[in-house]
Amino acid sequence: MGVSLPRKELFELPEGVIYLDGNSLGVLPKGAATRAEKTITKEWGGQLIKAWNNAGWMALPQVVGDRLAELIGAPAGSVATGDTLSIKVFQALAAALKMRPDRRVILSDNGNFPSDLYMAEGLIETLDKGYELRTPAPEDVAEAITQDVAVVMLTQVDYRTGRMHDMAAITKRAHDMGAVVIWDLAHSAGALPVDLAASRAEFAVGCTYKYLNGGPGAPAFIYVRPDIVEDIAPALSGWLGHDAPFAMELNYRPAMATERMRVGTPPILQLAVLQEALKAWDGVEMADLRAASQRLSDLFIAEVEARCPMLSLASPRDANLRGSQVSFAFEDGYAAMQAVIDRGVIGDFRAPNIMRFGFTPLYLDDADIVAAAKIIEEVTTTEVWREPKYQVKSRVT
Amino acid sequence: MGVSLPRKELFELPEGVIYLDGNSLGVLPKGAATRAEKTITKEWGGQLIKAWNNAGWMALPQVVGDRLAELIGAPAGSVATGDTLSIKVFQALAAALKMRPDRRVILSDNGNFPSDLYMAEGLIETLDKGYELRTPAPEDVAEAITQDVAVVMLTQVDYRTGRMHDMAAITKRAHDMGAVVIWDLAHSAGALPVDLAASRAEFAVGCTYKYLNGGPGAPAFIYVRPDIVEDIAPALSGWLGHDAPFAMELNYRPAMATERMRVGTPPILQLAVLQEALKAWDGVEMADLRAASQRLSDLFIAEVEARCPMLSLASPRDANLRGSQVSFAFEDGYAAMQAVIDRGVIGDFRAPNIMRFGFTPLYLDDADIVAAAKIIEEVTTTEVWREPKYQVKSRVT
Repeated sequence: MGVSLPRKELFELPEGVIYLDGNSLGVLPKGAATRAEKTITKEWGGQLIKAWNNAGWMALPQVVGDRLAELIGAPAGSVATGDTLSIKVFQALAAALKMRPDRRVILSDNGNFPSDLYMAEGLIETLDKGYELRTPAPEDVAEAITQDVAVVMLTQVDYRTGRMHDMAAITKRAHDMGAVVIWDLAHSAGALPVDLAASRAEFAVGCTYKYLNGGPGAPAFIYVRPDIVEDIAPALSGWLGHDAPFAMELNYRPAMATERMRVGTPPILQLAVLQEALKAWDGVEMADLRAASQRLSDLFIAEVEARCPMLSLASPRDANLRGSQVSFAFEDGYAAMQAVIDRGVIGDFRAPNIMRFGFTPLYLDDADIVAAAKIIEEVTTTEVWREPKYQVKSRVT
Repeated sequence: MGVSLPRKELFELPEGVIYLDGNSLGVLPKGAATRAEKTITKEWGGQLIKAWNNAGWMALPQVVGDRLAELIGAPAGSVATGDTLSIKVFQALAAALKMRPDRRVILSDNGNFPSDLYMAEGLIETLDKGYELRTPAPEDVAEAITQDVAVVMLTQVDYRTGRMHDMAAITKRAHDMGAVVIWDLAHSAGALPVDLAASRAEFAVGCTYKYLNGGPGAPAFIYVRPDIVEDIAPALSGWLGHDAPFAMELNYRPAMATERMRVGTPPILQLAVLQEALKAWDGVEMADLRAASQRLSDLFIAEVEARCPMLSLASPRDANLRGSQVSFAFEDGYAAMQAVIDRGVIGDFRAPNIMRFGFTPLYLDDADIVAAAKIIEEVTTTEVWREPKYQVKSRVT
């Protein structure tokens, strides 16, 4: 029996804001500022270089990795933290390709987050061995897993629509065809139950600044299935993935277990804040989280559809086929979203026409959802979004 | 005419500590904690996702890169920040090798920081095209630059001894032989004047947590010579190196200029603290810094040699051939350094027998140097380091 949700009291939520963008940048956990202050003033300022040992900095990437592992159904020691998600995608893909030296196809889908595809492109060009990146539509992926596929690399939950791949079924299909599998959990970790160990996927990667509330630029993570990790020669073979980083040996010897996927000096400040943020997950049952997420998002769909006939649902209607977000397509979605944000409901926009809303049961309740829907109704039915100030394009993440 | 040095008033220096390890982790600048608090509470907490635009987060990597550029003799727009130094080494090396497709030799030296060599090893194995990493002794590097060398990749200042390569001469020799040059400025940036533009080196990389005081795990940087950057196809082609990251195009198109060497979501918290730390450099003339550094380190050598006959200088005696650190070899250097640290003088140890001391003119004066030498004298002449508590090995960065 888990703690009851939401747990708004654990977060600093700005007055007058309903935040439906925790799928892009999570909110501020209450302990984060104090933790950063301690890390900076007491540890860095007071202990200086000694803090690497005495304040536990050196162990922090693994300690945080172990906590993350619990949230995604992975055993202790199987998750390494650091770098960015794009770097972790590169590491996983480079390692996966080496496992199938006779195959030349990387299979993803055209709904994958672009950076995953870009990193694959860069690796393909760097390897210069005739690799091919195939990107069928998401619904055609399972069928596209043929015996020439070396690696299936997918983001479980589509960043635009929330549509969810069936992790167990696709992994099984890939394994039946002899392919290695990489799951990007960017929109899964902290959003829904993930059972990586049961899936038997070889790799998973993810970020921590969305549903996990690690803060802007929080470190990424990578999971490697424990039974294969010792056969992996990391492409990004940095000193902190070395078996004895401080022996200063001239040749690389990978660390045991997933620690070999570490690269350079860890971002201590961001890791400390992330560790603090993860405390909000203590006692949370992922099944409860999923139930709350589905209730909130179903309610949102019902309210918005009843109030805003010009918006059309761009996410699967069946909550079991969605992650923890709901998107609506609207031709003037960019401007409409600016107007909605201006009225205190924060979602975001994804090109070309997607108004995206994330549901984070740690800090949202039913009343928030109804209030948000009313504001979206006000904006779309009055066409206030036609005001010139909402038409100005700026870079939005 | 620059500001006078030191500027101790800009830093939080612990009472009773003489810090000679700024070459490993710089001290805490006074504004850092306040800046982190603002970034966390006001920007992240108060503005949430909107802070990417409204608080300047999206521009921060480039703004900080431009400030770094000034400190290393590089033009605005030529320095990108983010990731770790090891990742930046990989990016530079992968790009450099593509520039010389008919050559197969990477030349470094056996005094280079191990992670640089490890990253080269990982890239070589990943490319699987018969590349060879040659690591002659540092003093033999110039002669070893032959016409089969694709890339010369060196750390300007040796992390163990402080011995300095002649950047201008080696770069010229490499170019005469048709090789591309990468300088690792880990122990140069903020330690001595660097004139990257004049050197005509193609690439440089570095970190910011040493002499630049950016804090534990502060972001790294990469410089690309402006006239070649548009021909570079990044191996680590992440979305924030894309020309239009938020257009969410399916194919990678590199951003103009060095921005294409960015990869993933920037570590905002660490970047904000770094930006604050760099304010300590406002008004500092690098020639003044170098003069102070040489005076402090010459004084240190004189004092230690007069007081501690069992230590033997492991750095060049000529200050013009050193960076901003001095090392002494001592068989029991590990234990001796622990005893010295225990008495408030913080240096560090590098295997197998190097006691290493860094000189940071921003916050050290002559009195500190003499006081430190006296403590080293006390430890080495009384042999207090033989106490068992100083013999225990732990991981020290």
